[in-house]
Amino acid sequence: MLSYSLRNVCILKPSQCRITRALQHTWRHCSTSPSEGLDQVRTLLQLCVDRYYVSPGQTNTELFQRGVSCSYGPLGTELRRNLLEQWWHSVNSSTEQVFGINTLSSSKDTGTDALRIVECEPLKHILEQQELSKEQLIQKIQTLIQRSPSLRENFLQGALEQFVPSLELVNRKLPFGLAETGLCFHPSDGSGCPAEVTQTSLVWFCPPRTSSQWLDHWTRQRLKWWRKFALSPSDFSSSVVPEEELEESASRGVRIVYSFPWGQEPLETLCSRGNTELLQTYKGVRSKLQCRDGRKSVPHVVSVTGNMDRGVMAFLSNSLQQLKKEDSKQKLLQRKVLKLHPVLAPVKVALDIGRGATVELRQVCEGLLQEFMDAKISTWPGYLETLPTSMEQLNTKYDEMGVLFTVVISENTLESGLLQVRSRDTTIKETKHISEVKNFLSRYISAADHI
Amino acid sequence: MLSYSLRNVCILKPSQCRITRALQHTWRHCSTSPSEGLDQVRTLLQLCVDRYYVSPGQTNTELFQRGVSCSYGPLGTELRRNLLEQWWHSVNSSTEQVFGINTLSSSKDTGTDALRIVECEPLKHILEQQELSKEQLIQKIQTLIQRSPSLRENFLQGALEQFVPSLELVNRKLPFGLAETGLCFHPSDGSGCPAEVTQTSLVWFCPPRTSSQWLDHWTRQRLKWWRKFALSPSDFSSSVVPEEELEESASRGVRIVYSFPWGQEPLETLCSRGNTELLQTYKGVRSKLQCRDGRKSVPHVVSVTGNMDRGVMAFLSNSLQQLKKEDSKQKLLQRKVLKLHPVLAPVKVALDIGRGATVELRQVCEGLLQEFMDAKISTWPGYLETLPTSMEQLNTKYDEMGVLFTVVISENTLESGLLQVRSRDTTIKETKHISEVKNFLSRYISAADHI
Repeated sequence: MLSYSLRNVCILKPSQCRITRALQHTWRHCSTSPSEGLDQVRTLLQLCVDRYYVSPGQTNTELFQRGVSCSYGPLGTELRRNLLEQWWHSVNSSTEQVFGINTLSSSKDTGTDALRIVECEPLKHILEQQELSKEQLIQKIQTLIQRSPSLRENFLQGALEQFVPSLELVNRKLPFGLAETGLCFHPSDGSGCPAEVTQTSLVWFCPPRTSSQWLDHWTRQRLKWWRKFALSPSDFSSSVVPEEELEESASRGVRIVYSFPWGQEPLETLCSRGNTELLQTYKGVRSKLQCRDGRKSVPHVVSVTGNMDRGVMAFLSNSLQQLKKEDSKQKLLQRKVLKLHPVLAPVKVALDIGRGATVELRQVCEGLLQEFMDAKISTWPGYLETLPTSMEQLNTKYDEMGVLFTVVISENTLESGLLQVRSRDTTIKETKHISEVKNFLSRYISAADHI
Repeated sequence: MLSYSLRNVCILKPSQCRITRALQHTWRHCSTSPSEGLDQVRTLLQLCVDRYYVSPGQTNTELFQRGVSCSYGPLGTELRRNLLEQWWHSVNSSTEQVFGINTLSSSKDTGTDALRIVECEPLKHILEQQELSKEQLIQKIQTLIQRSPSLRENFLQGALEQFVPSLELVNRKLPFGLAETGLCFHPSDGSGCPAEVTQTSLVWFCPPRTSSQWLDHWTRQRLKWWRKFALSPSDFSSSVVPEEELEESASRGVRIVYSFPWGQEPLETLCSRGNTELLQTYKGVRSKLQCRDGRKSVPHVVSVTGNMDRGVMAFLSNSLQQLKKEDSKQKLLQRKVLKLHPVLAPVKVALDIGRGATVELRQVCEGLLQEFMDAKISTWPGYLETLPTSMEQLNTKYDEMGVLFTVVISENTLESGLLQVRSRDTTIKETKHISEVKNFLSRYISAADHI
């Protein structure tokens, strides 16, 4: 259940580990029954809106819950950036040969797509031509639509078109892959509003005889990747795509799914697609496509397509921990913590001030802020907040935002250089010298990245 | 002319500096006359295609040259990623309060935009309804179009809509900004093919009385940013937007322009826009918009909009150096080097093997590759290349790709751990121990970033 927080604990000294164990006795995990599932969803959505992950509004949270792109707040924007960055890094710096590419999101060549970008002016012009007969009008509109570029639903076609230009890069040697991330557009399911989806795509070209092994290889890699950032890795699993749900060109497919409180939803789909689409793209000219694998065969294609908007929701859902605690008066309190993985957490550290001479303390904060920013540690300038808030309220807020550490500068810092660092995962406060905080944070984040 | 390569030289020892000076005497910069401008453009485009920056094809290179999004090869994709990353970092970690957001690229609310996403199926259905009169047909099509979402031309409207939800973040205190990057869509200039543009946007909300100063502040900041990465900073300049070219709502505008061989083109536009659009977005409800700046005024808006596709082209154009050299037989040779700034260069280091036992040397390369990848140093696995190439040909290729360093592993490395590191900018080869290469590269890149 606590895959990476165990690692975090290792950084603490043995004496503190005992405190952690004691804490784990006090804080009990909530058990989930089906009826609690809906409550969980409501709590998650509310928290995402309150804590700047998702912009407010019924329509917007519905988009978020559907697993398509929505209007994200600053924290959601950063979380998605971090997730995409990790995906890009994992695919492009694997020991396999993968090249990043960028293709256009609209294209004039593919005629089968369901969404078109239509320019309103020429269309208006046609509709206003009074001398046209009904048949002429229909004819003109059809021509206009056919000439309008269509919006991509995925990155496959773009990658297939870049296959031949990429052959030079690899001396016609297989296997290799082309990676791309960005927006794709899906036709509506009758609602009249097409959906935008932040997708990731790896299109893998390999010798026909190994395509099945490659499908298995990438399935293992991708599942490992999703689980790496999970608080509860078992919520991520893989399942074979039933034959009747396979795309026409695919011979075998696997899905990586996440178990949301309302059921399983796919995050990433891997398909072994043969070479039909590749041959179609190059109008059957096999000689263009042959590679040096000894048999002059046309490569087979394995496609790996992810939905990172749903990925964002999966990690938010996975990392929300609700803990119950009895206070000294036996009253039951609830603590919500967004235990996002250190590399995904959109805010690594919050900077706040305790009691003391405000002007001087703020100056210290500004210095630290700049130091953190230069080290690319994303920082929340809590000291700019001018409304009086108790430290307890602040901790609640930062835990719900998923902020890894809270640094508090006080009168004492001005005298001794010492400040308080509170950890989100252990709730333990440590005293550190101001000169060592930046390195402590950098090391903590990079340690979590490399395990 | 050589703004940052001077910095690079500082890393070398004094004795090597003399070699650099000597080299600068041997290699002469090409002088540019207007007639040479066209040649330069042709050379640049050819190099961009040959060296995997831009995908081949006439239509595609035309898009690239127009400064709109095109199909990028692996190096172009990485260069644009690096540029966007630098923009995001510079804006979000400035001492000013800026929050990153993400809004949808299509919207149902704004009715004035020129491009719409139309679903083909319902439209086809209307056109096939034979019982409709011409008037009914027109009516139905108009309704369908009006209901279709429009594609954004810029990020302004999205940011204005996020203004009120963001007020809580800053306790209604001004100034603050909302940043976003991504694709925008521009109607065609009659060609029938809308353009995609990778844009950056900072929408800055400030008290009315300081909006003019803020326009100047951001102009200075942005110009400084563009010049930071330039080999020839004077090619980047700012100019006032003439009144007749200003957008309706803007009272003052400044452009950051780049002097391409064919003339100046805008990279980024800054506008002081008053509060008209903000009031329109909130239907004139001033109470929603008022901030705590002592006067309860409605904020003014300064917009900063950049085109990063043209930015990519500007830096490629700016960094291409053509140097002439007489060889020992007085024959004139030409050397082309893409002197991209170290943080922008898509490939930091190429790994190659010299003479020796291939299997062992490749193993060493694989180890180094993994080490560099883990340190997020983007590496070109030249050792996978199986066609025989001379070291000179390799250097020419890597110089044209803009690769900062070439590391050559040879028989000697297996014995002593020593390898050769060649610098793109100085062409000097240094001997280094294999254990120190990663740190040398990391330090070099981060030193260039922090100056």
